[in-house]
Amino acid sequence: MKSHTTYLTFETTERRQFVRITESVQAAVEEAGVDEGMALVSAMHITAGVWVNDDEPGILEDALEWLDKLAPPSWQPPVNDVAQSLRPTPGDYRHHRGGEDNGDAHLKNLLVHHQVIVPITAGRLDLGPWQQVFYAEFDGRRSKRVVIKVLGE
Amino acid sequence: MKSHTTYLTFETTERRQFVRITESVQAAVEEAGVDEGMALVSAMHITAGVWVNDDEPGILEDALEWLDKLAPPSWQPPVNDVAQSLRPTPGDYRHHRGGEDNGDAHLKNLLVHHQVIVPITAGRLDLGPWQQVFYAEFDGRRSKRVVIKVLGE
Amino acid sequence: MKSHTTYLTFETTERRQFVRITESVQAAVEEAGVDEGMALVSAMHITAGVWVNDDEPGILEDALEWLDKLAPPSWQPPVNDVAQSLRPTPGDYRHHRGGEDNGDAHLKNLLVHHQVIVPITAGRLDLGPWQQVFYAEFDGRRSKRVVIKVLGE
Repeated sequence: MKSHTTYLTFETTERRQFVRITESVQAAVEEAGVDEGMALVSAMHITAGVWVNDDEPGILEDALEWLDKLAPPSWQPPVNDVAQSLRPTPGDYRHHRGGEDNGDAHLKNLLVHHQVIVPITAGRLDLGPWQQVFYAEFDGRRSKRVVIKVLGE
Repeated sequence: MKSHTTYLTFETTERRQFVRITESVQAAVEEAGVDEGMALVSAMHITAGVWVNDDEPGILEDALEWLDKLAPPSWQPPVNDVAQSLRPTPGDYRHHRGGEDNGDAHLKNLLVHHQVIVPITAGRLDLGPWQQVFYAEFDGRRSKRVVIKVLGE
Repeated sequence: MKSHTTYLTFETTERRQFVRITESVQAAVEEAGVDEGMALVSAMHITAGVWVNDDEPGILEDALEWLDKLAPPSWQPPVNDVAQSLRPTPGDYRHHRGGEDNGDAHLKNLLVHHQVIVPITAGRLDLGPWQQVFYAEFDGRRSKRVVIKVLGE
């Protein structure tokens, strides 16, 4: 069995941003020399996620807007009544009592999930034709990491 | 280490539908001849998911109705005010600018997640007594695939 | 390749509760004697989840309140209009026709997801500095289980 670990570092320009990392995951598989196995792609932060979807700008913009409704930030006015109602009942996130302002990013992490596992077949990521791997940043503009663990042979 | 890959193909009669695939995943494990390991079950599409839950028709119907509220389609009237408010602010999904009408299915994919990993113990899927594996179709009536990758020994 | 299986049992005092299990997962890795690999942590129930986030009480309380809005129980009054609207249209969960009252817990399972995979590097869980593993109970006060499957070498 072969095992290989790679870390990716991100410093996004936007607070919320999707970053396509399919090519970096494939590169990690090639460094590992694994033909059959799995690649775990896991955010090492609690305000970020990993999503496999289409690299179509409309989808990514739709998703960011919608996540702001479902898990509303409190550092900007709620976009509508639903976003207002999904804010915490105390008026602000309890998490903010310690001076943070990223309570919404923890809930976005829950929705998106912080990891995916990509199957590896014949040395390639075994993805469907439209599937791309994205790092999903919800509290960026600072250094964040993803770990890629490749297992197989 | 043994590795085995199986693809399942679906052509659902409904646009949205849960399809139980536990038995197909168990069959893949037996083909693999793996006694101890993991089975990755991953949708190869960006408008589908994989969910482990109870094969109780009420739960599945509850889940489909609820997903239509949280991630509302725009090809039918919103079912209530929340569904209306969770639609994109431009009035329709940005993704639909290219002629698609399945923007909601991409968001349902995000909520449900496109994959699960089932542990394998003594040659069997190590699931709880009520756990069944479902393929969750959100934009069906055409050919879609799931990849099952079994790893272990 | 080494493989090791551990089961954790929970009997929470609250119906909904997060239980930190990072140390139990690390202990399973040490029992397995695995230096490089993956640890699958998977709830064996359909009304529970596993979440990796920060062990900060405010976040956990924020998350439980918010999950009750998004996936509202019907055994207590809805906390606001959004929770009311996200209840099933028939007035109660179809799942309750069989005498259950935990329909909301199945939807919370969908949101949180029932499993995570933790990478193992140099014999340690390869988590970020704030990442802790939580068992997320949504229908507790009775015996529930998590399976930990460690694979690697």
